[in-house]
Amino acid sequence: MLSNSRSVHVEFGHCDPSGIVFNPNYFVWFDFSVHALLGRAGLSLKSLIAEFGIDGIPLVDNKAQFKAPCRWGDDLIIESRIVALHRSAFEIQHIVRNGDVVAVECSETRVWTVFDAEKGRIKAAPLPPPVIAAFSV
Amino acid sequence: MLSNSRSVHVEFGHCDPSGIVFNPNYFVWFDFSVHALLGRAGLSLKSLIAEFGIDGIPLVDNKAQFKAPCRWGDDLIIESRIVALHRSAFEIQHIVRNGDVVAVECSETRVWTVFDAEKGRIKAAPLPPPVIAAFSV
Amino acid sequence: MLSNSRSVHVEFGHCDPSGIVFNPNYFVWFDFSVHALLGRAGLSLKSLIAEFGIDGIPLVDNKAQFKAPCRWGDDLIIESRIVALHRSAFEIQHIVRNGDVVAVECSETRVWTVFDAEKGRIKAAPLPPPVIAAFSV
Amino acid sequence: MLSNSRSVHVEFGHCDPSGIVFNPNYFVWFDFSVHALLGRAGLSLKSLIAEFGIDGIPLVDNKAQFKAPCRWGDDLIIESRIVALHRSAFEIQHIVRNGDVVAVECSETRVWTVFDAEKGRIKAAPLPPPVIAAFSV
Repeated sequence: MLSNSRSVHVEFGHCDPSGIVFNPNYFVWFDFSVHALLGRAGLSLKSLIAEFGIDGIPLVDNKAQFKAPCRWGDDLIIESRIVALHRSAFEIQHIVRNGDVVAVECSETRVWTVFDAEKGRIKAAPLPPPVIAAFSV
Repeated sequence: MLSNSRSVHVEFGHCDPSGIVFNPNYFVWFDFSVHALLGRAGLSLKSLIAEFGIDGIPLVDNKAQFKAPCRWGDDLIIESRIVALHRSAFEIQHIVRNGDVVAVECSETRVWTVFDAEKGRIKAAPLPPPVIAAFSV
Repeated sequence: MLSNSRSVHVEFGHCDPSGIVFNPNYFVWFDFSVHALLGRAGLSLKSLIAEFGIDGIPLVDNKAQFKAPCRWGDDLIIESRIVALHRSAFEIQHIVRNGDVVAVECSETRVWTVFDAEKGRIKAAPLPPPVIAAFSV
Repeated sequence: MLSNSRSVHVEFGHCDPSGIVFNPNYFVWFDFSVHALLGRAGLSLKSLIAEFGIDGIPLVDNKAQFKAPCRWGDDLIIESRIVALHRSAFEIQHIVRNGDVVAVECSETRVWTVFDAEKGRIKAAPLPPPVIAAFSV
């Protein structure tokens, strides 16, 4: 399945008065990592919108475990991979490594959505075969 | 159990190019809501550190469901409540209401930690009776 | 001239490992304050786009002086006012008060822009009389 | 004088509903760039605190010009350099390049501060010779 790895340097400004990463920053990094994961397959949200007419790939749920604090100056590796493909959704797992330590694990589900002009709102739609193929490498 | 409700106005700058709230902002708001929840009981992280010598109440896991997008200009209500007390941890539920719609639900677990000088790292410690009392109202 | 005042509670998560507000947060608050200032006149960026066909009111320059640190738990007042109107731009001053102390002062210039379809890019355009009137109260 | 250059990839989540970088993010990046600039001289805020007993190098003023919008997907270069050394302060200039375009220019002043135990507050102190030397390369 499609996977990607990227590095993040923990900056002073990522940390809170406890000196550890302010936890919402992990979710910022996971969002960036989703885009980088698409990029690994030569895709982008822009290209998916242009080619498949989707509205987006909104996050519908996520679950995270924070196992060890990360601190100002730490160099992290975020590994992201597609771990499940459903009819109109897909799951991504993110693992944040801080040296030998797994600092955070997160799994998230995103839905392939199109705009339903009749109902005036977005709805889930089946993942197109080329996207399934790109995610299945 | 202790509960609190606060309002959040969705600003232009909270939203991404899709025009909806950039999802990590919910976790920022949940963190602010935890502090407001403590405040509802006359407590603060500062006072807990001063009175009980804790290191902090770090987030160890959370789970969120994003049910409906929130948009620039929306006025949200975030309801937060203690939903479970364990020996050295507690669970908080956050519900984001956007008018009649439940937009996001999140549950999170935080651990009562002290610094273990011998081992040079933080460790879980039992919730003190006055804190259990304050959380149980 | 149009003015508005809003309060900001400094949250734990607004602060950096020094325990003071991470300085970019002031600029986040100033951006929110610009929208609130428009709202004071019954306007919004959305309504300006709809009524006057503008592309936006992008920030072109700002200058800030940070005079005193603000800390976790402080309750701030941000006063914002239009201080100058030019042909196709306007200046806003923001003053952050922390009790009796002026913590931060910032002045910023924003430009009234429309999309120039011929040249394929945005360009400055004259402030319309109703907007000048709304800003001049 | 000491200088450094770093790249920033503009992420979807850095942008606002206009599709351009939400302007406070530039100040986040400038703060990160200051730390990277120190790093270029083999210094860090931590090492400066440890070696020279300073309280910090707080930002006291900045001025920015936003000359061209940056968009989701753009690859930026941020060049930062020390441009002036004063008795107890120093000035840094940041230039954000987006391809051939200078998108943003910012100059900022930071003060070398120590904690004055008698008065119970921070005060400016002279830049030590080794720091002047490190900044003057």
